[in-house]
Amino acid sequence: MEQCSTALEKLVKIGIALSSVRDLNKLLDIIVTQARELANCDAGSLYIKDGDSLKFVVSQNDTLARKLGASQQAEPFKPFNIPISNKSLSGYVANNGVIVNIPDAYDIPESAEYHFDKSFDQRSGYRTRSMIQLPMKDNEGGIIGVLQLINAMDSVGQVIPFSSDDEEMLLSMASQAAVAIKNARLNDDIREAHLDTIFRLGIAAEYRDKETGNHIRRMSHYSTIIAEQMGMPAERVEVIRLSSPMHDIGKVGIPDGILLKPGRLTPEERVIMESHTTIGAGILKDSNIPLLQLSQKIALSHHEKWDGTGYPDRVKGGDIPIEGRIVALADVFDALSNKRVYKEAMSIQETMGIIKDGSGSHFDPAVVGAFEKGMDRVMEIYEQYKEL
Amino acid sequence: MEQCSTALEKLVKIGIALSSVRDLNKLLDIIVTQARELANCDAGSLYIKDGDSLKFVVSQNDTLARKLGASQQAEPFKPFNIPISNKSLSGYVANNGVIVNIPDAYDIPESAEYHFDKSFDQRSGYRTRSMIQLPMKDNEGGIIGVLQLINAMDSVGQVIPFSSDDEEMLLSMASQAAVAIKNARLNDDIREAHLDTIFRLGIAAEYRDKETGNHIRRMSHYSTIIAEQMGMPAERVEVIRLSSPMHDIGKVGIPDGILLKPGRLTPEERVIMESHTTIGAGILKDSNIPLLQLSQKIALSHHEKWDGTGYPDRVKGGDIPIEGRIVALADVFDALSNKRVYKEAMSIQETMGIIKDGSGSHFDPAVVGAFEKGMDRVMEIYEQYKEL
Repeated sequence: MEQCSTALEKLVKIGIALSSVRDLNKLLDIIVTQARELANCDAGSLYIKDGDSLKFVVSQNDTLARKLGASQQAEPFKPFNIPISNKSLSGYVANNGVIVNIPDAYDIPESAEYHFDKSFDQRSGYRTRSMIQLPMKDNEGGIIGVLQLINAMDSVGQVIPFSSDDEEMLLSMASQAAVAIKNARLNDDIREAHLDTIFRLGIAAEYRDKETGNHIRRMSHYSTIIAEQMGMPAERVEVIRLSSPMHDIGKVGIPDGILLKPGRLTPEERVIMESHTTIGAGILKDSNIPLLQLSQKIALSHHEKWDGTGYPDRVKGGDIPIEGRIVALADVFDALSNKRVYKEAMSIQETMGIIKDGSGSHFDPAVVGAFEKGMDRVMEIYEQYKEL
Repeated sequence: MEQCSTALEKLVKIGIALSSVRDLNKLLDIIVTQARELANCDAGSLYIKDGDSLKFVVSQNDTLARKLGASQQAEPFKPFNIPISNKSLSGYVANNGVIVNIPDAYDIPESAEYHFDKSFDQRSGYRTRSMIQLPMKDNEGGIIGVLQLINAMDSVGQVIPFSSDDEEMLLSMASQAAVAIKNARLNDDIREAHLDTIFRLGIAAEYRDKETGNHIRRMSHYSTIIAEQMGMPAERVEVIRLSSPMHDIGKVGIPDGILLKPGRLTPEERVIMESHTTIGAGILKDSNIPLLQLSQKIALSHHEKWDGTGYPDRVKGGDIPIEGRIVALADVFDALSNKRVYKEAMSIQETMGIIKDGSGSHFDPAVVGAFEKGMDRVMEIYEQYKEL
């Protein structure tokens, strides 16, 4: 009884810990770690329901990790799908919503509806003995996934079967985990929806320019790479990633006659063209949302120059918001290095020459440095979203 | 011990239940209900930390509810703020992050740093005796709020002090609640950010039209009211609310010479103007996000007419997506009943005359009916976001 209430206390703490993790991949890993600790066992895996199948997403195995060393794995972990049906053990558990608790995986009665697949053991040399598989049910009874634990151990490290106490505890934990996963996924969905909306409307903003969605994507990626290379914290990088696509939203306010003029702009036309920065800031102003506050700053400042010769406010050096300095470089790099309706693409070498020439005059030297450091990833993005 | 482990089991279930609630207001209510059940007490309240103060957000009192009947309350519940300082009891709890457990609120030692405010008892005739106040700490130890419970009862309904077992259980529960509140708030933040982005960019889409943000707001509200009056489930209504602001996004593709032409359009110009529906659908196409899929449908179909004489596809009756039919009415009502740069506002009576005349030809009669049923709320929105 004493033991039971200690385990329950642990369970309450695990519940709190799991609901605190908002990143899905991190959460999945923590679920397996905590479950293995709760049941004191050697290995564990997690399957997530994905339509009609289970996706194998986490695998932990102490014995194999020790044997192989931390630096290498027997086979690199690859997520794979198995159908939800009675053919596989985990499929059976998900299909019927029941626990399967097996003292020895190599000794499953002929009469059982499920079978153990020895192929992993054969490839790795591991010996699976005791095994428990639990359905992860959310608060409405829906199956979210399957938790699989292998080789429970006694206090001296001998493999023993999973007990009925284990069953009860783990089933509770599986429910906590199911709700946490469901929440993390819903969060991902909202975030995805937000991201997609931002991109669509970034594209709309550049529609008359005949810019493609790829310009918005490249810009956002380049800005992200620079922010990361400058050592910004992940959260701030994410805000830059999401707010940079709206930098040219003010172009919706520029008349066709100027925005689409093929030749050189007159000084008067240039003044109107440059007002896309202040128009954009006007559209985005007075928001309570940090993301939109930053979008506003970027819309306003992405044509300022390090030496104070930019527009609209001729702000100089460190007085230009750092995000504006970052987007300024990403924007120029992208404009030069890609084909547009009215011009051919410049080579990367030529483009980088211009960027480096502009370091300290047009661009913040620290931003140029960070961009150069991230050049490998810049080139990946460049290739992936190239204008054809 | 038996009792303790039963309570712990309950606690695990409560944890799962709390993390499953994504609506903040509902969650706050459930927290107080569950805490009162766990400690078997007569009354409970919840304070949420809001900057430097505590916001009083939930109040439950069985005795007063019985006395006054379900239909009336002594005083209508109004959220109010109290500063986080040692002056008030809950302020003290939040300020110091400690539990306060008082056998009798009217008998607090002179030496105590905190004081009980009798004003509520004096107004309501209630007698507060035993009281426990707990800090709600999240997983990182941050104070999210304060949970206050009043008049614990024994099995025959006699008021007794809160026990040290109660303290322990409630403290665990307060942590579960704190994390759940934190999550619900983060969700609200993302949702808010998404909503604000949609509105800003809806505004950008109508920028050249000189439409204001109020047009977007009214449209979204009118569409929501109609959807609700048609008995759609809350989730679907929410998606309509968020997707309707993007209905005219395709206008970014219409040349100034046509979009801004003051006089009548020629037939050729009209064809181009009408293409804002297909351009919008093009900008929003191929999304995996349900919200954007619906936005695309609305962008494409909000100028179709019930009798098949609309554009771009001359779709008819029930073949027009219901959301397109809803936005069609909201859009026409708003265009007629408000002042625009080039025209005066029509009266509500006149506008409704046109809408009703169009029922069965321009508009879906069911949508017109729902709009008429929601007229009170329509008028509230109309007044709130009127063009001045």
